[in-house]
Amino acid sequence: MNNFSFYNPTKIIFGEGQIASIAKEIPVEARVMLAYGGGSIKNNGVYDQVIDALGERIVCEFSGIEANPEFDTLCRAADAVNEHRITFILAVGGGSVIDGVKFIAAAAQYNGDRWDILTKGGKVIQSAVPFGSVLTLPATGSEMNSGSVVTRSAMKAKLPFGSPHVYPQFSVLDPVTTYSLPIRQVINGVIDPFTHVMEQYLTYPVGAHLQDRLAEAILKTLIELGPETLAQPKNYEVRANVMWCATMALNGLIGSGVPQDWSTHMIGHELTALYGLDHAQTLAVVLPANLRVRKADKLPKLVQYAERVWGITEGSDEERAEAAITRTEEFFRNLGAGTRIEDYDLSADVIDVIIKQLESHGMVKLGEHRDVTPEVSRKILETALR
Amino acid sequence: MNNFSFYNPTKIIFGEGQIASIAKEIPVEARVMLAYGGGSIKNNGVYDQVIDALGERIVCEFSGIEANPEFDTLCRAADAVNEHRITFILAVGGGSVIDGVKFIAAAAQYNGDRWDILTKGGKVIQSAVPFGSVLTLPATGSEMNSGSVVTRSAMKAKLPFGSPHVYPQFSVLDPVTTYSLPIRQVINGVIDPFTHVMEQYLTYPVGAHLQDRLAEAILKTLIELGPETLAQPKNYEVRANVMWCATMALNGLIGSGVPQDWSTHMIGHELTALYGLDHAQTLAVVLPANLRVRKADKLPKLVQYAERVWGITEGSDEERAEAAITRTEEFFRNLGAGTRIEDYDLSADVIDVIIKQLESHGMVKLGEHRDVTPEVSRKILETALR
Repeated sequence: MNNFSFYNPTKIIFGEGQIASIAKEIPVEARVMLAYGGGSIKNNGVYDQVIDALGERIVCEFSGIEANPEFDTLCRAADAVNEHRITFILAVGGGSVIDGVKFIAAAAQYNGDRWDILTKGGKVIQSAVPFGSVLTLPATGSEMNSGSVVTRSAMKAKLPFGSPHVYPQFSVLDPVTTYSLPIRQVINGVIDPFTHVMEQYLTYPVGAHLQDRLAEAILKTLIELGPETLAQPKNYEVRANVMWCATMALNGLIGSGVPQDWSTHMIGHELTALYGLDHAQTLAVVLPANLRVRKADKLPKLVQYAERVWGITEGSDEERAEAAITRTEEFFRNLGAGTRIEDYDLSADVIDVIIKQLESHGMVKLGEHRDVTPEVSRKILETALR
Repeated sequence: MNNFSFYNPTKIIFGEGQIASIAKEIPVEARVMLAYGGGSIKNNGVYDQVIDALGERIVCEFSGIEANPEFDTLCRAADAVNEHRITFILAVGGGSVIDGVKFIAAAAQYNGDRWDILTKGGKVIQSAVPFGSVLTLPATGSEMNSGSVVTRSAMKAKLPFGSPHVYPQFSVLDPVTTYSLPIRQVINGVIDPFTHVMEQYLTYPVGAHLQDRLAEAILKTLIELGPETLAQPKNYEVRANVMWCATMALNGLIGSGVPQDWSTHMIGHELTALYGLDHAQTLAVVLPANLRVRKADKLPKLVQYAERVWGITEGSDEERAEAAITRTEEFFRNLGAGTRIEDYDLSADVIDVIIKQLESHGMVKLGEHRDVTPEVSRKILETALR
């Protein structure tokens, strides 16, 4: 087990009817920015519940945060925070809105060029406006971590940042708010956390027995309940477990003390920035190919994954590993996600473009061994083509 | 899944050599009370590492915190905190020292009768002196929770309290500090977390699939590594995993959204208060008997436990449940713990005394259904006798 620090001060308030409890979490004298996306929260009752809970507080709304939150939009919001002397931001939505609010909260108090926050890795952040979230689209885990990803379309860039100053103070998770999600978002909400776990689990053994078993616990729960959450949109028990899996997949716990990969995410970000695929769609495309290309390197963990998660105990190590990768890809496909580049009406000529963007963003030494060079990324994309 | 709130702001700093990092966690201008137990930390190098890390800070030492920390001792420490205008307490030791420091931190700032803190359940606490810990005896999980148990021998009482004001600000977990532990403490350090998990897991199903699998992950890790940690005291990998299991067993996570039992603990506390058994010894005695007496009530979870944790898939549900309980008791015995009252040179006449004490402490409706009356507790103790 590697040395680690684990710190996560976000308060999770989980369950049906819990939106009302934000009344106790936000100071009564707060000047609140209510930040959200395209307005689906006005159709599913969430907006009304939030407004009720905010009561007499001064509320300024900022809507229109994009599915991949845009730097320019977020800068406008940060300006509005300062203009209206906002003291608390409430993000209502999915990972994009919460990621966006993390940037807004930091940018509002940052005196330099706000682009620094993304290009210098969040280390420049000294403070942020306090904020909380009401999660309506479980997938990214943003509701209980200090990371964020922001897009700048004009530069075809989608870049991450993180800072201990941008943990949500609280996040409300009411599974009922997910009942009305479009099916594509529900699929994404299984694949995204599944891949988050894999990025932290499927590397090489460091004797972290407990972390491995915790990761396997999340994977097995997603495998068991992923198809159910699609088939039964209003099954509270199923939705609740999938929602909590998504949070646990990326709150720092299972990644403590173990090597981490994240190359699937970095390659996937370029696919989104260039061609507009959903984040989880890019993961469904890149993860199986990534595991295939780097199978030899990841063999011991692939064999463990095969046995403990998929119950595969026959064949050579290499065969078990291959079988586990196949099962993973089938799991994604059976959920309804395309797992090949061509499934998204793209062809081989995108590969050069993606590689060029990875290079221009400095993503040239990815993975747990920093050996996923542009050449390896190219092999992964070629393997993912059809 | 039941509704829940989860909040745990304790920073965990884990790994070899991490004691030095307390220098960054405690304000340089702090007036520090260094609180510890019987002095073993002076023999194993921990004391020296701590003193080095504290550097030029003003340090006042308070030693002699008992294995079951005594109310009177802790009140003296709280007086010393005020007398010396202490602004930060550092607990160095195991769960008893950390539990004791939680009481000291709260009592120093409490203006009423300090006995209230234990009899009124911690709700009276409005503030506490900030504190951190260096854990040297993993078992109780106190290093990452807001609970504590304090003994008042004069009244034969061992009572719990909890408050959000008594989370440690940080806890350092260096597995190397456990290499020199006496074997009895190592045994306790497996049984105590195992039973913590069981109190939160082995109740009745509420559809909390993820919590169940996380709990099973900890149980399986302890079953795999418990015998190893006894056989190989200086195996870092093994000690690290058992240490992290103990923290994860009682930091609130696996108990979020599920019913909890805790009757084994409450009955066990009386055994310690009356006859001086180690806390974990009482759990080894009470847990198997408790599961036997309440087998019908706990059957669905016992069957799940049998299959997933012990791999028992043969026989009727009742037979699987019984087999799992037998395996649990054998696991404790093979570690070297007595699992019957008579193993500790006590006889049947203690049962009446324990029941009387449970009644006098109001422990008359225990368990996840509040149906563990004194009559049920009596059956449990009779079953645990020989």
